[in-house]
Amino acid sequence: MTGIACCQIDPQIGDLDGNAERISAAIIDARSAGADIIVLPELVTSGYMLSDEAEARSVALTRDDPRFTRWAEAAGDSLVVLGFCELGEDGVLYNSAAVLDEGGVSAVYRKTHLWDREKLIFTPGRDLPPVLQSRHGAVAVMLCYDLEFAELTRLAVVGGADLIVAPVNWPLFPRPEGEHPGEVITAMSTARTNRVAVAVCDRAGVERGQRWTEGTAIVAADGWVVAEAGPGEAVAAADLDLLSSRDKNITEYVHVLDDRRLDLY
Amino acid sequence: MTGIACCQIDPQIGDLDGNAERISAAIIDARSAGADIIVLPELVTSGYMLSDEAEARSVALTRDDPRFTRWAEAAGDSLVVLGFCELGEDGVLYNSAAVLDEGGVSAVYRKTHLWDREKLIFTPGRDLPPVLQSRHGAVAVMLCYDLEFAELTRLAVVGGADLIVAPVNWPLFPRPEGEHPGEVITAMSTARTNRVAVAVCDRAGVERGQRWTEGTAIVAADGWVVAEAGPGEAVAAADLDLLSSRDKNITEYVHVLDDRRLDLY
Repeated sequence: MTGIACCQIDPQIGDLDGNAERISAAIIDARSAGADIIVLPELVTSGYMLSDEAEARSVALTRDDPRFTRWAEAAGDSLVVLGFCELGEDGVLYNSAAVLDEGGVSAVYRKTHLWDREKLIFTPGRDLPPVLQSRHGAVAVMLCYDLEFAELTRLAVVGGADLIVAPVNWPLFPRPEGEHPGEVITAMSTARTNRVAVAVCDRAGVERGQRWTEGTAIVAADGWVVAEAGPGEAVAAADLDLLSSRDKNITEYVHVLDDRRLDLY
Repeated sequence: MTGIACCQIDPQIGDLDGNAERISAAIIDARSAGADIIVLPELVTSGYMLSDEAEARSVALTRDDPRFTRWAEAAGDSLVVLGFCELGEDGVLYNSAAVLDEGGVSAVYRKTHLWDREKLIFTPGRDLPPVLQSRHGAVAVMLCYDLEFAELTRLAVVGGADLIVAPVNWPLFPRPEGEHPGEVITAMSTARTNRVAVAVCDRAGVERGQRWTEGTAIVAADGWVVAEAGPGEAVAAADLDLLSSRDKNITEYVHVLDDRRLDLY
């Protein structure tokens, strides 16, 4: 079994040092609670509601920033995925996710589907989400709006992902009482139609007037939510048998990947 | 506004004449209630739990069967979509949907994704679901398991569909209390990620020991369920402004189709 923890914390806009401490504390707490895979929100190093490119540039990190080394040390033998505002070696800004393990930054993914005003600040990533082999199974890393594109999630599963993890910042949209957030509905559908586990880590708090869905959730490969953070700063945690989802058969004659009609699409 | 009615009736296995009467009655009732688009279950002419190809052949209809003319007359100026066991002009069996209007059978779609033991009886369709221009907007017609393939539903929306309709027979799977059926979760995700309305018509009753989800639902283009049939024989009905979903923008900078990264997949 693999322990997954999604830490729905409340970063403060522009507070690089304070957020670094919040991130370290969340990693240490999740590790103490036995987590093998720890997910933090999108843009957790900087906050989300950056007003323009200049402000984003002032809080951007390069992937060799020493903070990553400190967080990787805190991570120990767990795998940590967190979102950050990246200054690329090409001088432009990316909305990125870093994957940390004992060795430091083992991968960086740059968001390929930018949401709304992110398009005014960030350059979209040019590469598909990585599917990383770990001792816990194969982990695909995406960011927020990426999850709304079934083309992308399917490709990750075809590429061998046992778990899709995604730092997110979900702006609050109204929904009928008793319903999961729409984004969680899509995570559930992604899970059940691909037989893949999905772990999304939203953020808490209110930032420059923006409220968040606080929709952090872990979804098992059968499509049902096994843990939610609920409102406020909180952790969603669950133990999942990630390798069990490598069996894509639902019945003797139903296989969610082999049943695709690749001759038609 | 377009009135949509999904008639969750309880066909009897092998009872072609009785089912024909049930279908006529459902169409007449839905028309009286003001429906413009009327959906009936998958394989509603024959029942679903056919034991083998020989039994299926014994209850198959060709698309020029006079029953379709009678149902089309009952339909008047509404559009009717129903599932039937089709004997093709090539002598093989298809799990098909017929679209009926005043002129009779205006289209037949043959299920491209066969579920489970259907593979032992039916030949999979060779053509993508049609997107039919009607005075109510563009209607894509699929069947049951087809809906689980986001590749297919996306293609329908790119092809201009304002509404996806699907006759289904959903075998009952266990689910946590308070949750929509998993198949409805996927219909909701399809709706919200494509901004398209989805109307699915399940069946009622127990057939040869098989229970059904009785999950008939109409989902608006924002992803929320606007009508459900609930258990037993019942109708889910709703009025939807289908053309409003042609606007694929969620915010000024978010467009659910233009935001696809077609350079990556």
